[in-house]
Amino acid sequence: MSEVINKVLDLAKRRGIFWSSYEIYGGVAGFYDIGPIGVKIKNRIVELWRKYFIRDNNDLVVEIETPIIGPAKVFEASGHVESFTDPIVECKNCKRVYRADHLIEDTIKKSVEGLKPEDLTKIIRDNNIRCPSCGGELSEVRLFNLLFTTNIGPYTGNLGFLRPETAQGMFTAFKRVYETSRQRLPIGIAQIGRVARNEISPRQGLIRMREFTIMEVEFFIDPNDTDINNVPLHRFQDIKFNILTAVEKEKDGKPQEFKLEEAVREKIIIQPWMAYWMAVASNFVKALGINDFYFEEKLPYERAHYSKQTFDQIAIVNGIKVEISGHAYRGDYDLTRHMKFSGQDLTIFRKYDEPKIVKKKTLIINNVKLKEKELRKKVMELINNRSVEEVEQLIKNNVKIDDKPLSEFLSVVEREEKIHGEHFIPHVVEPSFGVERTLFLTVVNAYREKEGRVILSLPKYLAPYDIAVFPLLEKEELIKKSIEIRDTLSDRYDVLYDEVGSIGRRYARADEIGVPFAITVDPQTLVDNTVTIRDRDSWKQVRVKVNDLQISLEKLFRGEALNKIGIEVKDSNE
Amino acid sequence: MSEVINKVLDLAKRRGIFWSSYEIYGGVAGFYDIGPIGVKIKNRIVELWRKYFIRDNNDLVVEIETPIIGPAKVFEASGHVESFTDPIVECKNCKRVYRADHLIEDTIKKSVEGLKPEDLTKIIRDNNIRCPSCGGELSEVRLFNLLFTTNIGPYTGNLGFLRPETAQGMFTAFKRVYETSRQRLPIGIAQIGRVARNEISPRQGLIRMREFTIMEVEFFIDPNDTDINNVPLHRFQDIKFNILTAVEKEKDGKPQEFKLEEAVREKIIIQPWMAYWMAVASNFVKALGINDFYFEEKLPYERAHYSKQTFDQIAIVNGIKVEISGHAYRGDYDLTRHMKFSGQDLTIFRKYDEPKIVKKKTLIINNVKLKEKELRKKVMELINNRSVEEVEQLIKNNVKIDDKPLSEFLSVVEREEKIHGEHFIPHVVEPSFGVERTLFLTVVNAYREKEGRVILSLPKYLAPYDIAVFPLLEKEELIKKSIEIRDTLSDRYDVLYDEVGSIGRRYARADEIGVPFAITVDPQTLVDNTVTIRDRDSWKQVRVKVNDLQISLEKLFRGEALNKIGIEVKDSNE
Repeated sequence: MSEVINKVLDLAKRRGIFWSSYEIYGGVAGFYDIGPIGVKIKNRIVELWRKYFIRDNNDLVVEIETPIIGPAKVFEASGHVESFTDPIVECKNCKRVYRADHLIEDTIKKSVEGLKPEDLTKIIRDNNIRCPSCGGELSEVRLFNLLFTTNIGPYTGNLGFLRPETAQGMFTAFKRVYETSRQRLPIGIAQIGRVARNEISPRQGLIRMREFTIMEVEFFIDPNDTDINNVPLHRFQDIKFNILTAVEKEKDGKPQEFKLEEAVREKIIIQPWMAYWMAVASNFVKALGINDFYFEEKLPYERAHYSKQTFDQIAIVNGIKVEISGHAYRGDYDLTRHMKFSGQDLTIFRKYDEPKIVKKKTLIINNVKLKEKELRKKVMELINNRSVEEVEQLIKNNVKIDDKPLSEFLSVVEREEKIHGEHFIPHVVEPSFGVERTLFLTVVNAYREKEGRVILSLPKYLAPYDIAVFPLLEKEELIKKSIEIRDTLSDRYDVLYDEVGSIGRRYARADEIGVPFAITVDPQTLVDNTVTIRDRDSWKQVRVKVNDLQISLEKLFRGEALNKIGIEVKDSNE
Repeated sequence: MSEVINKVLDLAKRRGIFWSSYEIYGGVAGFYDIGPIGVKIKNRIVELWRKYFIRDNNDLVVEIETPIIGPAKVFEASGHVESFTDPIVECKNCKRVYRADHLIEDTIKKSVEGLKPEDLTKIIRDNNIRCPSCGGELSEVRLFNLLFTTNIGPYTGNLGFLRPETAQGMFTAFKRVYETSRQRLPIGIAQIGRVARNEISPRQGLIRMREFTIMEVEFFIDPNDTDINNVPLHRFQDIKFNILTAVEKEKDGKPQEFKLEEAVREKIIIQPWMAYWMAVASNFVKALGINDFYFEEKLPYERAHYSKQTFDQIAIVNGIKVEISGHAYRGDYDLTRHMKFSGQDLTIFRKYDEPKIVKKKTLIINNVKLKEKELRKKVMELINNRSVEEVEQLIKNNVKIDDKPLSEFLSVVEREEKIHGEHFIPHVVEPSFGVERTLFLTVVNAYREKEGRVILSLPKYLAPYDIAVFPLLEKEELIKKSIEIRDTLSDRYDVLYDEVGSIGRRYARADEIGVPFAITVDPQTLVDNTVTIRDRDSWKQVRVKVNDLQISLEKLFRGEALNKIGIEVKDSNE
């Protein structure tokens, strides 16, 4: 864990961004509370995601909410009961449980992702890996299912699970959403909601939690519609991706730059709509203030059980490298499974542009000549389980029954049929973000130190407060004027007001939680009705007229430089 | 279940507001999906709640998020493991399980809330109540715990529960929030989050679900601060409440009207801050469009285990009567219990206005005269477990040890001490709303029928879309112009665009989901650059210039009458 992470964890706890849940009971690994400042930043991140993934794709994407608890059948169908597992190993001496792959990777410094339990056991034995806590001998590696289990209702044995992803809610509701919405593909179903994964050893910070919030889109497409021009990639004409392809990865290569369309045409990204959502994700992550990232293709054995191709978006923030989003091409896996397990038709009808005339062979049985029971039985046995084409071949081959040619009893005719379309199972691409992880990385990325003090240099639109208003001193007239200014600005901005303590300390506190601008009311305000505006990052201050404040702030939030909106003043207030 | 409820359930399913979850698997009782239209309304309701309960109380209330899953200890402390139960009864023949109190109430038409299992069993026996399904004999009534149970981590026996309310997250985090926030009472901690209750027999619609979202505030106050003037009741000077007091309720009386302050001064509401939040709740519920409601005081045996006084806010919508919010005075129950179970200090220090001088008696032991071991032991045994005052009394009573007066070994002196304040446990009042239930009641309340068609007459600011834009006909020029108008309005409004089907059908669809205004582009638009604006509720239309559209809409959303903003036109478009 890098030094900056520890500093962020400390800041987060001290300033109410997040902290370990149930602290008074010693905490429970993998559970975090999001504090007052954290919720404000988080809510803005969620709204930003909604803008990029839903509002900007208003004609394609709708949002729903489905339960966290689901009946066993849903997760049997989804494959999670069978495949949502991690390898664990137990110390035979102290009974501690470890994630086998992490334990091995920490020891032999080599990735063992996707290896089977027996292979992991062999590596443990070969390398004589022992319990890190007591040195005891380790058990065989076995698989542990990460689904949280519960019982629904008063009858025992009515097994339920907490969802490990929101996706299954969209799959089980797909037909209903499709029918109540535009009834056309593509259609995206988005959801923002809690999920739970019973991790063996949750990591520090908000990187790997046992309960967290996912923002994801299941985007349903017609797999036959492969025309790249039907995907609005032109919206992202200038976007370039850094992609570490599976091929390069196996050679220990580096990410390479691709233009969006190029990555699609060269089949680096096998589904054009996946490329589209990767472009949206790129813009979203940049809007979080994170500019250093690349997409890493998962190797086949690293992929989840449902995926045909997966890319992780890897962000590099303040020296640490973490997956910030996942992009999976789930194909028709989920809908096919739910069709099978529910017995319901989840197909979509694809209407042909014009009806197709198809020739269809039909078997004609001459019932008149097959009145005799024994004979009829023989003929029926012969054609049973054979296709029309196969029977036709038998007739042609002059096969005989009771010495009579088959053609006496059977004939095959070709008829024309008009077909208006066909049923198919939509394919799905899925861009997926973890909310708390995104919050964490946004905060880590924004963490700065300046002259021994902390600044949270968040993008302005993600700051917990837009503006701070401070009276320089705890004097009645200054307080009165400050509250007046606060109330005027509150219609439009989220304003932090604080009158307690030295002004230097209040600036420092506002900087620590990332408030972009601080307005200070000082004795001069009472003389000439001006205030100072202080910039969080540069600590520079300008003096502006109170009457111009609204306009000045508008300019600052549009990105104009501080010195363009007023006369710079020296640190007079500190 | 009333007829209107069935109509709303049908509308909700047909138009994507909500529907039973896991439909393709036959559904699971008590679980609902919120659909695309439902999420839009729901998100606006949540934001409205945030405005009334958090933003308008910015200086008092902060928002946090805590996990759904908690360790057993937390819910042992909260009393839920012991007390969060419902009485159930099982059919000895068919093994079906029923909620005993509901079964009895349905049969004998009398409330049995709060009665003990043995009393309920007696009523069942006395009234010969049998299984409604097979007529079989019923078992004894027993208590069933409604907490969903799970296991945290890879070790078995590490019991966890899904929270049945968000409140415990605020209590366990109280000290941390207090310290990272303003460090003053009162302070409110709000949370909007999922909870789960393993109900025996969830009811139809979103009234009683097994998983739902709560919006609640735990408002921490100094119980000694009883000055009603410290509570900003003046904000609600004109508010009158209809209250059904416990006293009236026992007499089968009716709700009576009280002025807010009057209800507090007459101790109808025993905590002024509870009255404050009931006033906020009143305004919030009115903003949902629901004007018919009253507060019903719970009788002592109807109250939750933690409550000193509880009011349910009962809404009457379209003929049905449902609890829309709960207001509990939880006192110091929760913090006291968590102090006890965690061993942590959750008290707040109340500083006196000025230090108090208190006289304090101290026991002085004359060690010189108590050098002899046996003697010392005797004296120590005597004073052990006695207060200073008691020892002083012994001295005064001239008690002797080894024939020497106690005063030779012990003396009591009185000293003055300066005390700056004292520690105390804050009290809590809690206003609490269920999100899905609020959504449901808002929709039921807005349900209208007119000439055989459905109108969802939602308050404008709660509608899923602000505006619909329709080309009258599916013609290229009209579509082009419509899209142009849609794009212009999209910056400011959430716009529904639809070009498919007859205009009458599109109006009807927009009415059904509550879109307040529909703008129609027709051939005349291409001639004189005017469009029609149609009002959802009156179906009246006016014609306005496209250039005036923004201003016209602003006026309409401010509440101006349709006929004030343009010339009324007859149903020309239908």
